[in-house]
Amino acid sequence: MTAEIIPLPRKDAPEPSLDAMLALTATGMNAVNTVILDRMQSQIPLIPALAGHLISGGGKRLRPMLTLAGAELVGYNGARHYKLAAAVEFIHTATLLHDDVVDGSDLRRGKAAANIIFGNPATVLVGDFLFSRAFELMVEDGSLKVLKILSNASAVIAEGEVDQLTAQRKLETSEERYLQIIRAKTAALFAAATRIAAVVAECDDAQEQALDEYGRNLGVAFQLVDDAIDYDSEAAAMGKTRGDDFREGKMTLPVILAYSRGDDMERVFWREAIGGFRTEDSDLEEAIALIHRHDAVNDTRERARHFAQRAIDAISIFPDGRARQAMTEAAMFAVSRGY
Amino acid sequence: MTAEIIPLPRKDAPEPSLDAMLALTATGMNAVNTVILDRMQSQIPLIPALAGHLISGGGKRLRPMLTLAGAELVGYNGARHYKLAAAVEFIHTATLLHDDVVDGSDLRRGKAAANIIFGNPATVLVGDFLFSRAFELMVEDGSLKVLKILSNASAVIAEGEVDQLTAQRKLETSEERYLQIIRAKTAALFAAATRIAAVVAECDDAQEQALDEYGRNLGVAFQLVDDAIDYDSEAAAMGKTRGDDFREGKMTLPVILAYSRGDDMERVFWREAIGGFRTEDSDLEEAIALIHRHDAVNDTRERARHFAQRAIDAISIFPDGRARQAMTEAAMFAVSRGY
Repeated sequence: MTAEIIPLPRKDAPEPSLDAMLALTATGMNAVNTVILDRMQSQIPLIPALAGHLISGGGKRLRPMLTLAGAELVGYNGARHYKLAAAVEFIHTATLLHDDVVDGSDLRRGKAAANIIFGNPATVLVGDFLFSRAFELMVEDGSLKVLKILSNASAVIAEGEVDQLTAQRKLETSEERYLQIIRAKTAALFAAATRIAAVVAECDDAQEQALDEYGRNLGVAFQLVDDAIDYDSEAAAMGKTRGDDFREGKMTLPVILAYSRGDDMERVFWREAIGGFRTEDSDLEEAIALIHRHDAVNDTRERARHFAQRAIDAISIFPDGRARQAMTEAAMFAVSRGY
Repeated sequence: MTAEIIPLPRKDAPEPSLDAMLALTATGMNAVNTVILDRMQSQIPLIPALAGHLISGGGKRLRPMLTLAGAELVGYNGARHYKLAAAVEFIHTATLLHDDVVDGSDLRRGKAAANIIFGNPATVLVGDFLFSRAFELMVEDGSLKVLKILSNASAVIAEGEVDQLTAQRKLETSEERYLQIIRAKTAALFAAATRIAAVVAECDDAQEQALDEYGRNLGVAFQLVDDAIDYDSEAAAMGKTRGDDFREGKMTLPVILAYSRGDDMERVFWREAIGGFRTEDSDLEEAIALIHRHDAVNDTRERARHFAQRAIDAISIFPDGRARQAMTEAAMFAVSRGY
């Protein structure tokens, strides 16, 4: 008996990309983008101005793409998922706006963050507006099941963000605690985005569960690699200032691994750094060197590879085809991007 | 033919109060409070700590009380409105938390505002959490009509708050523009709170509309008097620092009236003050003197009286009784409070 092995990318293999996913969802994403642009409007001009700054700011719109890909995977032929995918993107945009205020970010996707241009007050309120609009879109669709999935995901995201705040500057944060946080703050919305495709297509429970698990594991993989990149690549690659997590004292996996593998001297450094007393560029360089010494960026990617493989396996119950291949490559891309 | 005249309070009449409303809704509010305390819980301890600071901080819980009073008025005998009234209070609490961040408030209900104790980041995120919880409660109830009313109200509130931000420090704000802002930021939730009572009771459209209009007009009256009090009474009475609106350059009706009735010299003062260049206590005293000279606080109350009377007339289609009397007195209280 042989098990089929789907190869995951290595550094020497050709890089996986989102191209297949983009091609799969291109037509549908036009419909989603129309809903997004239409429903971010308001008689108050500041609202589309601020929302548009972020929405047209070059995000991948990965989450609504996942809803569309999921719908393709299960052979859904209707049009309900366009509005719902837009609702998912609005929830995501609302959390990004609030995150920028929470983190005091300067950059988002390589541009000045909304709070820097429009101020914290307007940024908080336009986030609230988009969040409300998301629920209006869901209500128009009329599925209580979708409403339940996305209202629950929204509460879990907020809990995850608060939990992350609580863990900030706490060197004793464990890998398990960290995983709990990213499952909540990131993976919950990925899971909801893919799951609702199964709901509109009226799939059975097993298929709904499979799409949920695909999204959830993909979300964990994405966040792990996001957190690895913060200690790995150029800021430009992400549109994120490298070292943001370091300066904010966020306990992400590269730090957790480097700390636990470090000697006493290194631990003294980490204590000071995560405590907020080592915030110079030279301190960031030292942190990167220590993380590199313990291979903590690569091992964070290895952890991501595990979750990406689980995502790929979760959808193996569906017939092979264009959708499954695109979703498989998206999971591989989640791991390899930023190299 | 004679028209029945429901007398509104004058300075020499005994003061109306919320006592009748409190008595009418006392039993129901126990059920609502149980839902509130139960559903603000989370495994993340900071969430109930922060939410509890505001929720147990002595607010009147006027909005859920209005849902319960509305249900009494239409003779509803079920229990669905308890959860929905809690959802209304969660939406209100979320907006208060975000308001405190937006305004940079120091005090709320006479206590240190949540953002002062817990910081802006946690305050924004716990607001998001409560907002999501509100939708979870509505989904559990299962009425798409209620979900539509409250998701729409939430979007309108956010629009009103952004609009208020846009009008800040703009001396040319008209009374109509101001009314538009307070209808959105305050009255929309009052209207939704009372309207959903008609929805759960499956009232006809006319009754639903009547309850909506009662809430909407009451909300306008409340906000008008709130804005009058900021130039009128002691901070202690409201648990709000007197002069907050003045220092923030908010264009509320007392200022709009005093400015439009003022002479050239006075207008110079207002231009500097609303522009943010006159923020001393002596400047506030001068503002209060000018507002007093033009009777602008009293006339703001007179405007409130008009809306309170419309609220009272809106529910005159229902049979007289304990509920209608309590709601009538609540509208009178909206005008007279803070004297």
